Amino acid sequence: MGDLELNILGNGSAVPTKFGNPSSQMLTYRGNQFLIDCGEGAQMQIIRYKVKYRRLNNIFISHLHGDHFFGLFGLLSTFHLFGRENAIDIFAPAKLKPLLDHVFRTSDTVLRFPLNFLPLEDFSDTPLLDKESFTIRSFKLKHSVPTYGFVFREKPLQRKINKEFIKGRAIKTKHILEIKAGSDYVDDKGILYKNGEISQKPRNPLSYAYCSDTAYHEDIVEDIHGVKLLYHEATFDESMLEMADDKKHSTAAQAARIAKLANVEKLLLGHFSARFKEFDTLLQQARDVFPNTFISVEGKPYQI
Amino acid sequence: MGDLELNILGNGSAVPTKFGNPSSQMLTYRGNQFLIDCGEGAQMQIIRYKVKYRRLNNIFISHLHGDHFFGLFGLLSTFHLFGRENAIDIFAPAKLKPLLDHVFRTSDTVLRFPLNFLPLEDFSDTPLLDKESFTIRSFKLKHSVPTYGFVFREKPLQRKINKEFIKGRAIKTKHILEIKAGSDYVDDKGILYKNGEISQKPRNPLSYAYCSDTAYHEDIVEDIHGVKLLYHEATFDESMLEMADDKKHSTAAQAARIAKLANVEKLLLGHFSARFKEFDTLLQQARDVFPNTFISVEGKPYQI
Repeated sequence: MGDLELNILGNGSAVPTKFGNPSSQMLTYRGNQFLIDCGEGAQMQIIRYKVKYRRLNNIFISHLHGDHFFGLFGLLSTFHLFGRENAIDIFAPAKLKPLLDHVFRTSDTVLRFPLNFLPLEDFSDTPLLDKESFTIRSFKLKHSVPTYGFVFREKPLQRKINKEFIKGRAIKTKHILEIKAGSDYVDDKGILYKNGEISQKPRNPLSYAYCSDTAYHEDIVEDIHGVKLLYHEATFDESMLEMADDKKHSTAAQAARIAKLANVEKLLLGHFSARFKEFDTLLQQARDVFPNTFISVEGKPYQI
Repeated sequence: MGDLELNILGNGSAVPTKFGNPSSQMLTYRGNQFLIDCGEGAQMQIIRYKVKYRRLNNIFISHLHGDHFFGLFGLLSTFHLFGRENAIDIFAPAKLKPLLDHVFRTSDTVLRFPLNFLPLEDFSDTPLLDKESFTIRSFKLKHSVPTYGFVFREKPLQRKINKEFIKGRAIKTKHILEIKAGSDYVDDKGILYKNGEISQKPRNPLSYAYCSDTAYHEDIVEDIHGVKLLYHEATFDESMLEMADDKKHSTAAQAARIAKLANVEKLLLGHFSARFKEFDTLLQQARDVFPNTFISVEGKPYQI
């Protein structure tokens, strides 16, 4: 498993089908886990696809249409029954908080673990998470109810010092950090080592963006610019352009246009209307605009 | 398909497993459909097992633990999205009503069809449904929150008049009904025909009872007496008797004891704890008490 992995638990839309479950996906970054949306059955999909969730401490809910959060009640209940004690942070539109309280009051459940509710409305300018090695930010999508996209960005990695160079030398921590940050190094005898000779360029930072549900919306291009992987909804095909506009969803080609404008590396399509039995048309229409497009598959781990 | 069929959509308990979904089952009687409990994922199980639901107009929720009703929000939303217009009657503990309203308000859904909510608390002495050919009644189970069992009973069928006897005779409707009810018949010429010679005994009435969740509770024996099929929870095995008592659940042997006392024809066990990977022990312990016991299987149609 690489440093950043995506597991799609559901890529269906409002009405589930045999192969399209309600929206939910697990993003795993070096042992940190993030659940993005939690449609009905998310916990069963986690079991079916053997997706780990022990390091899940953050849940992000894009908007309050049922196919994006009806699985939250069951998932949290199960964590409770498993004796979980670690807190869970839920980032979601504010209106979800009183509903969660109502659900657990009705189902006679007093959660064993702290549930920290963080209204997405409070994060218009600040990241949801700003950690040493990554950030997660939200941005506004264009849908029939307030809806947010999410973007994960790894922070630039430090340079890796050549092992042979370190071996046998007593280099102070202070200098180690300087070399990792790109500085040259002068040893006790006054010998200069150019940074490029004693350290390696790290790989490029990893990044991922989730955009569902949304109409075609160019405002998001800046937010998701250059991500390695973009998951964008593609509820309809080009023949349903008017319906997409009316229902504030996107066609596959519109998703591809966003991917192209944002100069992302790879595009995954999802949130398919239940009317589609095959996805060749959607894929072709998107690839005509942005060739590096793929149909998302539930249960398949994507290394980003 | 016979006149009465049961499809078990979920026979797991609070924590779902790969093979044990949250409680839900569909009972179909001559085109009438009844959904009993609606745990998370019920609508996906309906799709998976190709269970018809067009004639579903009545939903019964035994109690308000999440594994018995968290699938209701998604199921009703799907009916709405499919353009359903026929009313649905929901029989459930009263506290579910304001929660349903809250869920649909939050998920921005105004159901297209009338949703009639009938609090189970209002039916302590009267049947939930009393139709020409059947009744459905509720009765109290013994659990940690108010919980109801349900029993379906077909009304006694009328006798079938021999076709050869009717053929060529102009028998008045009034007399037809009398013969069906068991009377002899005297024709215009004064000839007496004994009922047993001109009509056949109908099959015995069909019946089914659902008991989940409940501790061992002999008070229900009268309510479910003599049913052809009893589904009774068996969360635990005999080694967990104390836990069963503490959590107000039953062991398989306790379920069998109820089946025996109630003189039912056949017992189906369900609502298994997630700790069981196989059910041989549960089955054996129950069969030692009541031999005609079976482990329920999700997706298998049971002809009653």
